Amino acid sequence: MNRIAAVLAAASALGGQAAQPPFAIVIHGGSGTITRTSLTPERESAYRSVLAEALEAGRRVLAGGGASLDAVTAAVKVMEDSPLFNAGKGSVFTSEGTNEMDASIMDGKDRRAGAVAGVTTVRNPIEAARAVMEQSRHVFLAGKGAERFAAEKGLATADPSYFRTDERWRQLERAKERDALPMDHDAPKSKPAKSGQRDEDEKFGTVGAVALDQAGNLAAATSTGGITNKRFGRVGDSPVIGAGTWAENESVAVSATGTGEMFLRGATAHDIAALVKYKGLPPQRAADEALAKVAAIGGRGGVIVLDRTGDAVFSFTTEGMYRGYAKGAARAEIHIFR
Amino acid sequence: MNRIAAVLAAASALGGQAAQPPFAIVIHGGSGTITRTSLTPERESAYRSVLAEALEAGRRVLAGGGASLDAVTAAVKVMEDSPLFNAGKGSVFTSEGTNEMDASIMDGKDRRAGAVAGVTTVRNPIEAARAVMEQSRHVFLAGKGAERFAAEKGLATADPSYFRTDERWRQLERAKERDALPMDHDAPKSKPAKSGQRDEDEKFGTVGAVALDQAGNLAAATSTGGITNKRFGRVGDSPVIGAGTWAENESVAVSATGTGEMFLRGATAHDIAALVKYKGLPPQRAADEALAKVAAIGGRGGVIVLDRTGDAVFSFTTEGMYRGYAKGAARAEIHIFR
Repeated sequence: MNRIAAVLAAASALGGQAAQPPFAIVIHGGSGTITRTSLTPERESAYRSVLAEALEAGRRVLAGGGASLDAVTAAVKVMEDSPLFNAGKGSVFTSEGTNEMDASIMDGKDRRAGAVAGVTTVRNPIEAARAVMEQSRHVFLAGKGAERFAAEKGLATADPSYFRTDERWRQLERAKERDALPMDHDAPKSKPAKSGQRDEDEKFGTVGAVALDQAGNLAAATSTGGITNKRFGRVGDSPVIGAGTWAENESVAVSATGTGEMFLRGATAHDIAALVKYKGLPPQRAADEALAKVAAIGGRGGVIVLDRTGDAVFSFTTEGMYRGYAKGAARAEIHIFR
Repeated sequence: MNRIAAVLAAASALGGQAAQPPFAIVIHGGSGTITRTSLTPERESAYRSVLAEALEAGRRVLAGGGASLDAVTAAVKVMEDSPLFNAGKGSVFTSEGTNEMDASIMDGKDRRAGAVAGVTTVRNPIEAARAVMEQSRHVFLAGKGAERFAAEKGLATADPSYFRTDERWRQLERAKERDALPMDHDAPKSKPAKSGQRDEDEKFGTVGAVALDQAGNLAAATSTGGITNKRFGRVGDSPVIGAGTWAENESVAVSATGTGEMFLRGATAHDIAALVKYKGLPPQRAADEALAKVAAIGGRGGVIVLDRTGDAVFSFTTEGMYRGYAKGAARAEIHIFR
């Protein structure tokens, strides 16, 4: 190929790229008291690395023309597999010293949805949620019933010990000492954590992803271990369609993290979508307004929101939120602090 | 008292009554294929009698100046205690032959909420939902964790055999034969039920109540045994705040019944509230629109909605819905058919 032909071919390739429909993915790894002083450079680097890997896993799917549903599943799985996040491996402990995980997923194209709560043996809870959506007549399965279903469908299982990390165990011990329910990434106010412990108490966090694929379909997924020292059987907002997760092509895709109880009482993920489609608010204002309502009843946390143009919104009422965003071929962004 | 004094006293009493703030209660006992030909006069009379009792239990609370939260609890308990409805005693069976019950409650004043899923030993699941709201730091408890919590709080328990009725058991056997998930009150289409069986298959139904008290506070409550032949661990819309139950003084109180999966995918109860507060729709149009969206994805059912003037709305996409309405001192209404 001579030089002119090569330039023309490159131009044509660029032209083809410009004509590609928009695609985008947004992820979060939880929100809370995350500040520059509380995170060592090493830990920050470790977080950024997993967030980048999760974002890339999702973007690869989208760039190849794959479905947003596959992209959010891939991104969430990376964070579930990392002990750094409070989902899958590295989940926090209940007051009884067990790991009970919740997850949900929603397809914006037809509002199909799947969710599981209180699973203890499913390696990737998000895959169980997806199997409920695609391979059952139900939307929401809990406890042993959800586990048995996942096993029947051949999903990878794991011994409860797989999910355990020593840091989470120490968090439980400290929480019990304080009789507290530390929220995502919070160092509790009742009794300030000692220096060094604080980093650990801040490092847990629900994970989630929202994506737009080249076919114009939105999807959302959320996965969590819940809150340290929660009661056995407690269900938060993460597996609840409309509270922690929502996606519909007519409005937006949302994944939330924070004090689940207040998000349940706000039907927060659906509230954001409703503010967009019924009140005509821009997604950023809708997200801010919904979180203000959560704050008004004593809750804190954050949300990621994506609309059908591929524009992303982050909103959080905490000091920080682990988050990332990639749109089309543009450079991916990873942020942690305000 | 002479005649004139008596007339004056009566007028004063009437005047006092007219000045009383509005209060109202609406109840439902499920929706489905309920037609005049499918219900014998005896059965119709039995249903009307329990519905009237439930309505009166709630109205008595409101007339005495009590809270809407107490009114909906009282009304739902009457229906849970009756074997005629699919909630508490008389709940339908899972595919494993167990009764797993779900319930939720919400206070419109401050959006406090409580819910339980998959309880098998709590005599009145709505009381467990309320205890979660009032006596725990959580909103939603599932399975054994919910049962243990209810027992700790001293709620009445019952042996699983208490909930069992022979008719529900036969419904399960017929459903298994057809491999069906009969919806509230539906005679399945795949294999028409024999005459005589049809009445039985139609008589199950989620129960719910919404109320407005004299202080101007709305509340909502829903309780159910779910759907016959459901998978062990299945959670429907009834315990999900925003799907089967919603109440906020700024908009409306809602309780839903029907194919729970489609109501979960619609966040239907919150969707109705959002259509009222964000889009400015009258409650009837909001309810009709939300149910049309449920119908668009293959779901059927009904909702009751109450606003802060005490005006009630019924909307259902089925042949019938067991329902009742009482506002202030006016005569209570009970309806079953269209």
